Amino acid sequence: MPGTEPLDLQSIVDDIYRELTPRLGEGKVADYIPQLARVDPTRFGMAVVTVDGSVYRAGDAEMPFSIQSISKVFTLTLALGKHGENIWTRVGREPSGSAFNSIVQLEHEHGIPRNPFINAGAIAITDLVLAGHTPREAIGEIVRFVRYLADEEDIVIDAEVARSEAATGYRNFALANFMRSFGKLDHPVEHVLGVYFHQCALAMSCVQLAKAGLFLAASGSNPLTRHSVVSRQRARRINALMLTCGHYDGSGDFAYRVGLPGKSGVGGGILVAAPGKASVAVWSPGLNHNGNSLLGSLALEMLASRTGWSVFGG
Amino acid sequence: MPGTEPLDLQSIVDDIYRELTPRLGEGKVADYIPQLARVDPTRFGMAVVTVDGSVYRAGDAEMPFSIQSISKVFTLTLALGKHGENIWTRVGREPSGSAFNSIVQLEHEHGIPRNPFINAGAIAITDLVLAGHTPREAIGEIVRFVRYLADEEDIVIDAEVARSEAATGYRNFALANFMRSFGKLDHPVEHVLGVYFHQCALAMSCVQLAKAGLFLAASGSNPLTRHSVVSRQRARRINALMLTCGHYDGSGDFAYRVGLPGKSGVGGGILVAAPGKASVAVWSPGLNHNGNSLLGSLALEMLASRTGWSVFGG
Amino acid sequence: MPGTEPLDLQSIVDDIYRELTPRLGEGKVADYIPQLARVDPTRFGMAVVTVDGSVYRAGDAEMPFSIQSISKVFTLTLALGKHGENIWTRVGREPSGSAFNSIVQLEHEHGIPRNPFINAGAIAITDLVLAGHTPREAIGEIVRFVRYLADEEDIVIDAEVARSEAATGYRNFALANFMRSFGKLDHPVEHVLGVYFHQCALAMSCVQLAKAGLFLAASGSNPLTRHSVVSRQRARRINALMLTCGHYDGSGDFAYRVGLPGKSGVGGGILVAAPGKASVAVWSPGLNHNGNSLLGSLALEMLASRTGWSVFGG
Amino acid sequence: MPGTEPLDLQSIVDDIYRELTPRLGEGKVADYIPQLARVDPTRFGMAVVTVDGSVYRAGDAEMPFSIQSISKVFTLTLALGKHGENIWTRVGREPSGSAFNSIVQLEHEHGIPRNPFINAGAIAITDLVLAGHTPREAIGEIVRFVRYLADEEDIVIDAEVARSEAATGYRNFALANFMRSFGKLDHPVEHVLGVYFHQCALAMSCVQLAKAGLFLAASGSNPLTRHSVVSRQRARRINALMLTCGHYDGSGDFAYRVGLPGKSGVGGGILVAAPGKASVAVWSPGLNHNGNSLLGSLALEMLASRTGWSVFGG
Repeated sequence: MPGTEPLDLQSIVDDIYRELTPRLGEGKVADYIPQLARVDPTRFGMAVVTVDGSVYRAGDAEMPFSIQSISKVFTLTLALGKHGENIWTRVGREPSGSAFNSIVQLEHEHGIPRNPFINAGAIAITDLVLAGHTPREAIGEIVRFVRYLADEEDIVIDAEVARSEAATGYRNFALANFMRSFGKLDHPVEHVLGVYFHQCALAMSCVQLAKAGLFLAASGSNPLTRHSVVSRQRARRINALMLTCGHYDGSGDFAYRVGLPGKSGVGGGILVAAPGKASVAVWSPGLNHNGNSLLGSLALEMLASRTGWSVFGG
Repeated sequence: MPGTEPLDLQSIVDDIYRELTPRLGEGKVADYIPQLARVDPTRFGMAVVTVDGSVYRAGDAEMPFSIQSISKVFTLTLALGKHGENIWTRVGREPSGSAFNSIVQLEHEHGIPRNPFINAGAIAITDLVLAGHTPREAIGEIVRFVRYLADEEDIVIDAEVARSEAATGYRNFALANFMRSFGKLDHPVEHVLGVYFHQCALAMSCVQLAKAGLFLAASGSNPLTRHSVVSRQRARRINALMLTCGHYDGSGDFAYRVGLPGKSGVGGGILVAAPGKASVAVWSPGLNHNGNSLLGSLALEMLASRTGWSVFGG
Repeated sequence: MPGTEPLDLQSIVDDIYRELTPRLGEGKVADYIPQLARVDPTRFGMAVVTVDGSVYRAGDAEMPFSIQSISKVFTLTLALGKHGENIWTRVGREPSGSAFNSIVQLEHEHGIPRNPFINAGAIAITDLVLAGHTPREAIGEIVRFVRYLADEEDIVIDAEVARSEAATGYRNFALANFMRSFGKLDHPVEHVLGVYFHQCALAMSCVQLAKAGLFLAASGSNPLTRHSVVSRQRARRINALMLTCGHYDGSGDFAYRVGLPGKSGVGGGILVAAPGKASVAVWSPGLNHNGNSLLGSLALEMLASRTGWSVFGG
Repeated sequence: MPGTEPLDLQSIVDDIYRELTPRLGEGKVADYIPQLARVDPTRFGMAVVTVDGSVYRAGDAEMPFSIQSISKVFTLTLALGKHGENIWTRVGREPSGSAFNSIVQLEHEHGIPRNPFINAGAIAITDLVLAGHTPREAIGEIVRFVRYLADEEDIVIDAEVARSEAATGYRNFALANFMRSFGKLDHPVEHVLGVYFHQCALAMSCVQLAKAGLFLAASGSNPLTRHSVVSRQRARRINALMLTCGHYDGSGDFAYRVGLPGKSGVGGGILVAAPGKASVAVWSPGLNHNGNSLLGSLALEMLASRTGWSVFGG
């Protein structure tokens, strides 16, 4: 029974990795830029960092990968710090009911994206992070913030990935121009997307990512560094957004199967918070039809089931 | 600080009631049938039933009202009991991103409603509850199930409300015929809607409702009756669905502000589960623009804030 | 060169029939009711009735078939006669940009169908034809009107087709209930659809159909009977509606390729007006992906090309 | 009765101008760029050029205005000349059922615009006109083609309008990037839109415009210059597209009321072809809710009614 005796987390993550090994390579690797398509599809990493500071690893847990949309959690946290609840005049907080890069909803709702975790919403958030900054400064601020969260100074942006996204990101240019046509971006499209493509190109390992997200599992403070990142209430609210909106049009399914707040990226990573317990990151490049890591989601479902971690009841 | 000392729940609910009293009557009472429009808009009830069996009341907590869509939680539980996870071939589990009675999504997804808590999805669930039954039997089963959950024998259906909904429920007839046109209902439209209109017409008080939902806060078992209703995992999953889909196109906002799984009805009621803590029901007839109780949502936000109850972290 | 010497219309229709004979059976026969699915897919009929009263036939030009949506031209003409331009408060006159039975647009436009030739719009028109009548009387009026137009007393409704449509017409029940939910139908859904299913079940031959539509090619009067049916202006306007909306989401393509106003039905018939020249009806049961007769459209394109008939210039 | 005696066209256009004079200034002038907003809203011009070469003028018929989307007719004609019917792999020919600059449909149809007369479709056409050219060359070709059509050497592009559109055309950048994301543009977005903004900035008077469109009323040849522009069939087909798609989501209404193929622009101009009779241009800056000239549409309805000109029957 969950909770009644100490969990052997290392055994649990080892078991999950071993059980999934025969399936490595399943799913479809994102291929819209060559840098993502080149990744070895059989990579798999998992890291669990508990609120008391223990770290459990499996597979390629120390290998950096492109965090892509997981960065939206960090820029949202930054924007909330800068602008507080005023950000909700520029972006909603409802699940989208459609694909991550849909433009349809934007038209119906006059340039206000449904939530900060779809592309349009994250672009609106990046526009807010840019306030008072040059693009270069904003990129610097984002990198420093992630390093501070993870307490890891060697986290960097993969410049080649950022360049490649800029060269082919027509859909994001369409979204940003569309929002600009409704007067919903303050900065030039090129500046906003310049920052956005760089944040998506952050390269982090599972261990780094789990550490960076630990404040969400620990009421807003990072127990490793004793830094207070956000208030208790704000940590809850970011978790609420991850739970309802963190997996594009698979958010309901993830909540049903895993029962924990999380955010996925097309690089195959997922960051999850088990409040009061641990921060978890997985990485497996093959995606399901909603654009979320196929084996990553499965690994998290196994972890939640075996640990009893769920926000929905003991 | 939440959790560090015993909560005085009676004072908390009394305070909430007193603080909201000047605002009673705000919002727009549902008026699509005369029986709902006739309700006194200044009614307000609240009941908290903790997992150890204590009951706290404020206002009109013992006055029955039309639970309407809150009934969808009970029929979903029944359908899961009958058909298990097979129900997901007939209904999805993703937030809808649109109004409670939208038909647009049904066309795009070929007659499969997005989740069991929008009208189309609840009609699909009722169709499953009907399996092997006449409409009269199915209605009887639903009433008996709710009485069993609440341990209250005097819960009844308001027949006049049911008749009135049947006489004017053109939108629901449209939804049901539309699903039938895709072959996604097994029973005649008239049978399915006959049952559906009756389940929506269940009249319950806040206390009755909070008791009936207590199993969701208590890992699947009702601590008052010691009845096991569903498994621990199923209780979690129903909570997950309530959190992501329980408030129509205001589900994300409710999760953000309140942080607890809940289900609203156009009668002005909301049922909420605080896992491990309590089951809560509120009633205030005035609705916000998403069709959820305006003051009821606010009362729950106040309760969550003052108790520290949240699924998203301590 | 078109127009410079008398056309040998009999040779032209004979040639078209002969050239299409190898392809008879192409396309997909409508199968949503057994009575339509049972039709021989290799049937082909064509009739041209010129404004001076000559009749040219090919193939099964005298064999009755289910005219289905072509009836919408006749009920529109009746409704305009009864209510004049007031009908445009209940139905628009813009192309729909979507399928013949789409419900999406109805939601966006609050129960006002885009035009009288999609199902929802035709149902709204039938509701107007019902004004002051029982369903039985309205059906009688429609049949008498079509007989009067064609000057043929033996045109009848296929009662079995009407019954079958009523038993399976869930999509139309959905559309009608949806409009009723917006208060956009005056009569009970069952009455309106009772009439609608009967009008669609009219059985007519190509010759009868071409005669019935002759007033549209002849400035509003039937040169065979010398009856004045509608004003010159109204004939033009009905032609305009057929040109922009007569072929569901293939209306633009039909205008481009054929260049004449027409209305198709899922029974495989198409009625076309060549103003000042002739009324034309074709019948071939196999449909294209837009639900219009595949070979029927092709036959009309051949006819228009060989006669030089086009509303868009000599 | 129309057609039985010679029309006094000068009296007709004079009467229309006089009768509309009290209403000059009605409608809403396009204001998305300052250059359009600055126009005097009470301007009104009208020109009728008959197929035998007579020119009738009223009001500001010789004053140049920004033809905007009317240019789409000329680039479509150019693209058909270069690529023939192959253009239909890049753009459809169905009415859109939505606003002139909607992006929703593009997503549903994977980057293929519905027709060449909505913005997205015109951008696709401009991409085809660019084939083998630099943007500068393509702009030159378009200007030369329009001069050739109108036989007027002093037609020019208003460079300030073009620059201003480029600086604020976020919606068009969104549309073009969106199409590019589906691989449906061959040239860089900046090149395509550079040409597009210039073609829209062509400044022409009603007389010049009517002359330039005369080939559409005269079976493809310009009777003034005796130049053959397109084949008889192609002239018909362009007319068909104008009739079904020429007025955005008001195309059906224009066909119903006016009964002639036409194309409008947000500068307040409308070009119309009365096949076999005349080419007509009107200009009145105030727009209706569909973005078409309010008084311009009305003037054409009056003209059609008084001349009896209609493609839908004598």
